[in-house]
Amino acid sequence: MRSARWASTATPLRMNGGGSDDKPRVGFLGMGIMGVPMSINLVKAGFPVTVWNRTPDKCAPAVQAGATQAATASEVVKSCDITFAMLADPVAAEAVALGPDGVAEAMCAGKGYVDVSTIDPDSAAKIAAAIRNKGGAYLEAPVSGSKKPAEDGTLIFLCAGDEALYTQCREALEVMGKKHLFLGEVGAGAKMKLVVNMVMGSMQVAYSEGFALAAAAQLNLDDVMDVVNNGAIACPMFALKGQHMKAGNQQPAFPLKHAQKDMKLALLLADELGVALPTSAAANEQYKRAKGRGKGDEDFAAVHSNYD
Amino acid sequence: MRSARWASTATPLRMNGGGSDDKPRVGFLGMGIMGVPMSINLVKAGFPVTVWNRTPDKCAPAVQAGATQAATASEVVKSCDITFAMLADPVAAEAVALGPDGVAEAMCAGKGYVDVSTIDPDSAAKIAAAIRNKGGAYLEAPVSGSKKPAEDGTLIFLCAGDEALYTQCREALEVMGKKHLFLGEVGAGAKMKLVVNMVMGSMQVAYSEGFALAAAAQLNLDDVMDVVNNGAIACPMFALKGQHMKAGNQQPAFPLKHAQKDMKLALLLADELGVALPTSAAANEQYKRAKGRGKGDEDFAAVHSNYD
Amino acid sequence: MRSARWASTATPLRMNGGGSDDKPRVGFLGMGIMGVPMSINLVKAGFPVTVWNRTPDKCAPAVQAGATQAATASEVVKSCDITFAMLADPVAAEAVALGPDGVAEAMCAGKGYVDVSTIDPDSAAKIAAAIRNKGGAYLEAPVSGSKKPAEDGTLIFLCAGDEALYTQCREALEVMGKKHLFLGEVGAGAKMKLVVNMVMGSMQVAYSEGFALAAAAQLNLDDVMDVVNNGAIACPMFALKGQHMKAGNQQPAFPLKHAQKDMKLALLLADELGVALPTSAAANEQYKRAKGRGKGDEDFAAVHSNYD
Amino acid sequence: MRSARWASTATPLRMNGGGSDDKPRVGFLGMGIMGVPMSINLVKAGFPVTVWNRTPDKCAPAVQAGATQAATASEVVKSCDITFAMLADPVAAEAVALGPDGVAEAMCAGKGYVDVSTIDPDSAAKIAAAIRNKGGAYLEAPVSGSKKPAEDGTLIFLCAGDEALYTQCREALEVMGKKHLFLGEVGAGAKMKLVVNMVMGSMQVAYSEGFALAAAAQLNLDDVMDVVNNGAIACPMFALKGQHMKAGNQQPAFPLKHAQKDMKLALLLADELGVALPTSAAANEQYKRAKGRGKGDEDFAAVHSNYD
Repeated sequence: MRSARWASTATPLRMNGGGSDDKPRVGFLGMGIMGVPMSINLVKAGFPVTVWNRTPDKCAPAVQAGATQAATASEVVKSCDITFAMLADPVAAEAVALGPDGVAEAMCAGKGYVDVSTIDPDSAAKIAAAIRNKGGAYLEAPVSGSKKPAEDGTLIFLCAGDEALYTQCREALEVMGKKHLFLGEVGAGAKMKLVVNMVMGSMQVAYSEGFALAAAAQLNLDDVMDVVNNGAIACPMFALKGQHMKAGNQQPAFPLKHAQKDMKLALLLADELGVALPTSAAANEQYKRAKGRGKGDEDFAAVHSNYD
Repeated sequence: MRSARWASTATPLRMNGGGSDDKPRVGFLGMGIMGVPMSINLVKAGFPVTVWNRTPDKCAPAVQAGATQAATASEVVKSCDITFAMLADPVAAEAVALGPDGVAEAMCAGKGYVDVSTIDPDSAAKIAAAIRNKGGAYLEAPVSGSKKPAEDGTLIFLCAGDEALYTQCREALEVMGKKHLFLGEVGAGAKMKLVVNMVMGSMQVAYSEGFALAAAAQLNLDDVMDVVNNGAIACPMFALKGQHMKAGNQQPAFPLKHAQKDMKLALLLADELGVALPTSAAANEQYKRAKGRGKGDEDFAAVHSNYD
Repeated sequence: MRSARWASTATPLRMNGGGSDDKPRVGFLGMGIMGVPMSINLVKAGFPVTVWNRTPDKCAPAVQAGATQAATASEVVKSCDITFAMLADPVAAEAVALGPDGVAEAMCAGKGYVDVSTIDPDSAAKIAAAIRNKGGAYLEAPVSGSKKPAEDGTLIFLCAGDEALYTQCREALEVMGKKHLFLGEVGAGAKMKLVVNMVMGSMQVAYSEGFALAAAAQLNLDDVMDVVNNGAIACPMFALKGQHMKAGNQQPAFPLKHAQKDMKLALLLADELGVALPTSAAANEQYKRAKGRGKGDEDFAAVHSNYD
Repeated sequence: MRSARWASTATPLRMNGGGSDDKPRVGFLGMGIMGVPMSINLVKAGFPVTVWNRTPDKCAPAVQAGATQAATASEVVKSCDITFAMLADPVAAEAVALGPDGVAEAMCAGKGYVDVSTIDPDSAAKIAAAIRNKGGAYLEAPVSGSKKPAEDGTLIFLCAGDEALYTQCREALEVMGKKHLFLGEVGAGAKMKLVVNMVMGSMQVAYSEGFALAAAAQLNLDDVMDVVNNGAIACPMFALKGQHMKAGNQQPAFPLKHAQKDMKLALLLADELGVALPTSAAANEQYKRAKGRGKGDEDFAAVHSNYD
């Protein structure tokens, strides 16, 4: 029963009507590549969903699926128990959370804010403080996975912050993803995300360099993919990106400029912590180079073009 | 029928008795980490197998499984239709193939030599020429996969050279591996192997750097593995090596000095071909460093110790 | 004549007494490795000098040489025409310039502030704006050169900002250095400094790697220095640092943590500008590693210890 | 007196007529960028000089200056006391020393061979053995310095091998260079050369990256050079190459493909010795990239074009 479940949490959500019988009313801020399919998955699972986006047009697909559109982030928070946000970068995340008509303005005890954007630890701490000052609960929950897993509901959520809120939003997380971990204090989720994205970014460069060597050695790229996809390094990413690299078709599942931003943030975190990461730094320079050559808005697999 | 099958090949093997009704007599040179389980798999599948190793003791497990032991490589070739070799490096491969009591001495028309070692293109070319000069058929067939896939019969063979021999040894390759590709001229197999091992080597360094950052950021390494093993970069190698890195238990499935040698050869090939591979070069330096610190005989996952 | 000289400038300094007949009253904030000898050189050249340091004790050498000590940065500015500042990093520079009892508080028309610290462009812009808001003139003038050139008066000043102030402080710059350039808008001086320090940082790593290879190859390090110091790459830095590396005596002429900070800032500037700098990034990782191993307060030549 | 000087050496040169009263007859093999001015300097200093080049035309400038031309390397050795060789790479060095009509054929007791080419330790050892087998003396003496120092007679000779021959050829070395060191056993000269050229190669990349950042930051490149050429990193190479990079005028004083070859050999030597050199490896990849883009025959400063 729902009441029992909520009762067991430290800061029970205020249920002021409007939600369906056993699901909290959820908000979703940010209707980009990720936000649209994630919010639609929530609608489909029966959650009452209210959405908002800075450019209102982008709400159309979610509204068509059954979501309600609000005029401001503040309004979303007012009418929902839990508000999710998937925003482009730390600047956008801070603006939406802390700015006028933003999240913090409408936050109060009994409400929760779950930021599923990838942001740096400092921004996360600032947002968490603002939410908590208003009595709200805060969970950072950056995701591992991009466009396709968002559509398929197979994301992984890296959660940290208020554990009660983590418990409360579990059902929603289960709809949007296949796995969720609670990692501890605010900041841990963002750090985990940076670690994983840094490894992923280096891997894409490693595969690009393999393709470049194979091409120069006049090996058949289909053979390369066949070997890679059947051996110890076979992984979903290589299966997908191998085709992208070969076809030169770089649909932005995860834009290169965001991949590079994550590598930069990971390296700066390593700098603070006194850890040298020479190979990741080398990979980061490849993304910087691709970005400088105008590939920032393409998929991060476009780093391959450096080697053409 | 076997006769029909052999008849269809360009250079039919001389069947001078001694083989079972439908299987060629196979030899296996080199009873190391890989050679032992590979030859045992051949025995178990019903092939008549003759083995040899420079240090004779190491033949014991294969002999126990049912193989015959020969005193020299030459003797193996004399008594077999197809001789496989899995040797440590180009120096050993050349010594066994070209040296006294070696393969070339006993080679003749109707016999085939399949070198499944990882060697550089120059050595492969030299060995191929010597075999062919004696009328024999030559196939290079370096494998993707190490100890575990060798035991499980799930290796991938990267074949190049005489296509007729490729056809003839298919049944044996299918016993030892799960996949085999024919890539063209001698040298193509070695090059493909270097490409794949270079990508693999860089990936291991990338994962090591991820672990190092995670540890410094006080993340739980089990959580890191959980996220990695469930996301887009999940692969058999990470599943295995994550445990190795965490436990510090580096059983040499693929010795670090061999992994580094492959990266060096890949980078030298790239040098010849005019291709710059900055991230692979950075990863190679990490292996060089680990090797310089006495980790050459440990598993290549021991590159992680650079970051401790 | 002095009056004529000032008359030619756009924003003449307010001469409210206290200065010597033909020299402006100068202040100096920050009595570190660099600030002490620089301020003493000004005293020796006949300038009336007022000094301040967060930890007052460190003013002793300058006071002994003839400088006056003030209790706050604000007081220095009040009693001087031109105030120089040599502070450890952007945080300190902002605190002293913008904080309570700081520079901006006492700034007014007719006074100039010359920041000879190495700071990032953003901090420089912030400080410049605060000074100008109060009617003061601002010049950033980071120096090329460390302890020894500071003592010898052979620094190079990389000036940018208010050209009139540049003209006005020339005589002081000539006392403290051997060269000064005016580079344009605020920010250009900091950028030039980052460029030069990045090249210098990479060179020190390059030389360290040369030493490491030479030592492993059992070459005599004195011979290495002899060859280097007589060839095309002979430079004052190699002459000095070669001895440091050989002797293991790392007097902090330029602390490693500051050298690393400059490389980090240079790489972040490159990131913004879309420029990939793979070799500088590799060198930066070496400084990060040395910093992580506790060498941050030693001279940046201590990066050599990575290779021991 | 000359007789006394030769008498003091272990293996006195055979003086079979034809030399001037107090100078040995010297041969010079290889009339490239370096060999021509070096041999002309010997002629000008009064040495009787015999020259040879694979393409005979290239001997013209030396012959015009007063040298005698021989038809084969063998002939040069026959008619001279000491034969110098400046050849393009290890392959050429071995061909000229060991091949038909080559140096070893004519070598005998009382004659010396001084190889001033830059070759790897293995080739040097092979050539030394062949010379000594015939009773000759061998000195490797690779030079630090390129076209300009060769013309000006300001090269540095890194000598190793037979010390008596070192003593005997000193007068000639003093004509061609400003400094010569005796470093010990054969191989030490080549290793020292690789160390110095590796540092030099990395420095050129570091300066190129500084230029790239400066250009992107809209700094004036003349200002950059002015600051660099007056500070702690001022060196003859930067003075020269800064102009080259700015003007895009890459006269091949030291061809990029040779600079890259030296970096490769240095990194392979480091590999053997168990030394990791991440920043030099990063720089090497830049040369590989430039070479792959068709810059191999330009000056090594053309590595700068990678960053355009």
